[in-house]
Amino acid sequence: MVTKKNILFIMLDQLRADALSCYGNSLVDTPHIDRLATRGVKFSRCYIQGTSCGNSRASYYTGRHVRSHGASWNGWATRTDELTLADHLGACGLNTYLMGKTHMKPDLAGMDRLGIEPQSELGRFISNAGFSQGERDDGLHTVGSGGGYGGVEPAYFDYLRRQGYHASNPWAQYANAMEDEAGVLRNGMFLKHGHLPARVDKIHSETAYTTDRAIDMISQMGADSWCLHVSYIKPHWPLAAPAPYHQMYRGMDLPKVNKCAAEKQNPHPLYHAFMQQTHSKTYAQDSRRDHALPTYYGLVKEIDDNLGRLFESLDKCGESDNTLIVLSSDHGDYFGDHWLGEKDLFHDPVTRVPLIVMDPTPAADGSRGTTCDELVCAIDLVPTLVEWAGGTPQWQWLEGQSLVPILHGPSPKNAATNTQLIRPYVVAECDYSAMDFASELGRNSYNSRMTMLFDGRYKYIHCLGFSPMLYDLQEDPQERVDLGRDQDYSVVRSQLTEQMVDWSAGLKNRVTGSESMAEQRKGKSDQQGILIGYWQSNDVPQALQIEPEVPT
Amino acid sequence: MVTKKNILFIMLDQLRADALSCYGNSLVDTPHIDRLATRGVKFSRCYIQGTSCGNSRASYYTGRHVRSHGASWNGWATRTDELTLADHLGACGLNTYLMGKTHMKPDLAGMDRLGIEPQSELGRFISNAGFSQGERDDGLHTVGSGGGYGGVEPAYFDYLRRQGYHASNPWAQYANAMEDEAGVLRNGMFLKHGHLPARVDKIHSETAYTTDRAIDMISQMGADSWCLHVSYIKPHWPLAAPAPYHQMYRGMDLPKVNKCAAEKQNPHPLYHAFMQQTHSKTYAQDSRRDHALPTYYGLVKEIDDNLGRLFESLDKCGESDNTLIVLSSDHGDYFGDHWLGEKDLFHDPVTRVPLIVMDPTPAADGSRGTTCDELVCAIDLVPTLVEWAGGTPQWQWLEGQSLVPILHGPSPKNAATNTQLIRPYVVAECDYSAMDFASELGRNSYNSRMTMLFDGRYKYIHCLGFSPMLYDLQEDPQERVDLGRDQDYSVVRSQLTEQMVDWSAGLKNRVTGSESMAEQRKGKSDQQGILIGYWQSNDVPQALQIEPEVPT
Repeated sequence: MVTKKNILFIMLDQLRADALSCYGNSLVDTPHIDRLATRGVKFSRCYIQGTSCGNSRASYYTGRHVRSHGASWNGWATRTDELTLADHLGACGLNTYLMGKTHMKPDLAGMDRLGIEPQSELGRFISNAGFSQGERDDGLHTVGSGGGYGGVEPAYFDYLRRQGYHASNPWAQYANAMEDEAGVLRNGMFLKHGHLPARVDKIHSETAYTTDRAIDMISQMGADSWCLHVSYIKPHWPLAAPAPYHQMYRGMDLPKVNKCAAEKQNPHPLYHAFMQQTHSKTYAQDSRRDHALPTYYGLVKEIDDNLGRLFESLDKCGESDNTLIVLSSDHGDYFGDHWLGEKDLFHDPVTRVPLIVMDPTPAADGSRGTTCDELVCAIDLVPTLVEWAGGTPQWQWLEGQSLVPILHGPSPKNAATNTQLIRPYVVAECDYSAMDFASELGRNSYNSRMTMLFDGRYKYIHCLGFSPMLYDLQEDPQERVDLGRDQDYSVVRSQLTEQMVDWSAGLKNRVTGSESMAEQRKGKSDQQGILIGYWQSNDVPQALQIEPEVPT
Repeated sequence: MVTKKNILFIMLDQLRADALSCYGNSLVDTPHIDRLATRGVKFSRCYIQGTSCGNSRASYYTGRHVRSHGASWNGWATRTDELTLADHLGACGLNTYLMGKTHMKPDLAGMDRLGIEPQSELGRFISNAGFSQGERDDGLHTVGSGGGYGGVEPAYFDYLRRQGYHASNPWAQYANAMEDEAGVLRNGMFLKHGHLPARVDKIHSETAYTTDRAIDMISQMGADSWCLHVSYIKPHWPLAAPAPYHQMYRGMDLPKVNKCAAEKQNPHPLYHAFMQQTHSKTYAQDSRRDHALPTYYGLVKEIDDNLGRLFESLDKCGESDNTLIVLSSDHGDYFGDHWLGEKDLFHDPVTRVPLIVMDPTPAADGSRGTTCDELVCAIDLVPTLVEWAGGTPQWQWLEGQSLVPILHGPSPKNAATNTQLIRPYVVAECDYSAMDFASELGRNSYNSRMTMLFDGRYKYIHCLGFSPMLYDLQEDPQERVDLGRDQDYSVVRSQLTEQMVDWSAGLKNRVTGSESMAEQRKGKSDQQGILIGYWQSNDVPQALQIEPEVPT
């Protein structure tokens, strides 16, 4: 009997690691995620590669740094010929399915040049990170003065209507809307209404719907191995949670915000610019942060409850013993830390995300319930999943490392000092050219770039056109002191700069052929008569001593 | 009357700048190239981006650094979706033709994934840098014990046979073969025979054939503007020149080789490895270098003579006043300098190439006959040609700068100190993973990388996994002293390392959309209802204050 090798790849959107009880939250209880951690390996230092949704996800899906896949900001496509998770797992024989968000965009110009119709099967495959089966729903079906944000009407609209939520846009009018104390309908985009319940029953929320559909898909999978990417839209805003989640954590003692007045004194110009963003100004006000955070926590709790249902369904289908489960997030959320809202910069609340990998096979029994403190990152997932599924990672593309050795080896808890780091640093990037302040600071589409290199102690942030930022997480674990312009750290900065040069020189650009193709070529040219710089035929092996034939 | 805008882009292969009289050679007289320089602008400091044929040409054709186009070594394809010179000029309305070498390879895996048949029109377009019209001939139709090097039989074979050179491979048996003093046929690949004439009349050599065919093509161009890429295979080896070129410079005083004993003392490990290559060992022997160089010079002279014919034909067709002419080379040749043969490393004999641009329009009258000492490079050609042809460079791809302002502005001779540099540095790269010594030095397919940054004074070479190399061309214009490990230069090295980080962060990776697309998107999301981090609807402009409608 051939054992199936399934993969359930669960992504949450904008989830801070510390919003989970297994990552230290004392308020939010996430027993189903926690149980996954006790069955698998919990990574305490997983860093993302891009600091917003689209670029981070493109790194998860391609296994490549943002600098390599090029989708450096939301709304920018990865290249037409970029391989994705679905390509890589498809090559291992897995059927790949999607339920939820990918944030991938079609490369229309690239497809046009290559004669590929965007709505063709190939076009849809390319446009959606290779997930051509399943159901895509990126959420954010907002209504605006200039039209809505989403594209085609999602199946969720029709679902809601069938449940009795009749509206032209039931997402905006029910699932992410509230009725206030005066009976006025309120847009869930505005944080003030976060204490009110969303206008859907919790069994009809986006989270519940995503879970229901994922359960349906799992129940209908055939005999082949599969990968299902369940990609929740929440706890990303709108911060609209259905009852009882909207009030579950209201009035409780929230974790203290991490900020201090010194951070606002002579800040780095880019940090300053981000602090001036609307969302930062909102979340910098404690009262507003404290109003919004309980809703966010409620949305996390809602997902955990739904994951309980999802895992139960996997059990019922008899697939639990065949299914590796990954849970991660595309990035975190500042929630007022460092006087910031949202994401985009590089402090740990944004760049360090939860990563739990549960390998059901006996090979992983030794690592169950352990915490791995190695520096790992989003781009490690593709090679991990390919190796686990029995394939050979296509290293000419992949820039991460397989975590299978960690899953299959004993990984002592909290033993960062005892284990050998599998990589010397992790790298994340931000392209802020879409921000209004970019042009005010004299930057353009091509040079609004920041690159973080974190070596486990120092977090060095190269800011093209500006001085760097630098945090020493050993001395300053709260990341409150920017040493980027401190003379005492010039040697440290030089060393980190050298590492960044090394990093960029080692990126995978020669993607058009494999390692084995390179090996096959070695030494071939001699045999093809390419004899470079030899003086005479006696200087080459006899077999290569070919002189022109005398014509007959 | 609409004026035609034609481009004649002439590339020589492995031509050292100093092999031309207009670049200072006192032995070789190249009057036709020199006259081009007096009619146009001669660039004294043009640097290539890749140090061997394939990668350098891919940079010429894509307008992008090797790190961006990824074809880091001969035989590796650029990506299927990489735009080329022909794409860029085609978008300007020019018909693009090729005569000669491109060294481009098809991205078979990429095309397969996208359902593109390599032999289809689109497949051939992609496989050949977009040059789907004209005639490709990469030369090097060698015979080997393991089969030949070239692919399909070139039209040149048939041409030679029609001229009476009957053979299964008339390239190997005539055009690049010699008959020695004993009447034995000799393979032109072996340098020893370079003093003998190639077995073709000079009117039937590869150079003459390439010229004839280019003249034919020009005479048959229609009324539309065109770009013809005339890409000579010579003076690249085999060093087989037809009479009288084989002996034209024999017995004369050759330029002195540039090397000294100190270079061999404690050399950088990679420099050491290159010195151990067969071709380096051969050319390090003065007698052998001095035997081969006259043949090389003869091949250069032969091309100059043929360019005289080509330019004359342009006159006869009445196209000279409509045709911008570019002449350059993909890289140079060490010819024993620094104890090295061939190319691949970064000394000026390899990385600094001739570049002459002759713009026939009156706008360029002020610059005719001038020498421009700015740092320019191969990737500047695409934006230059696009701008000259009246198009808008697609800056989301292009990493060079347009030279049109130099062509159209007064450019004082030898005035490097008086003019403002248009760029602070140039960058070139080498991927030496195909070399046998790579694995001996513990390097693999992905980390055998060297990157040169030259700022006009310092030539800094980052060697992934090794200490850097550093030359100070102000104090050491002959590049004989490697300061890469000299403690006195640690500050200089740090500054150059920072520039290299800046360079890599500024590369163009977000290629899937234009600058104008980025501008159009700015501020759009607000209007689509994406209102991030606002507290209440009063905080946004009235037009954006959209609350959910009450369902009717």
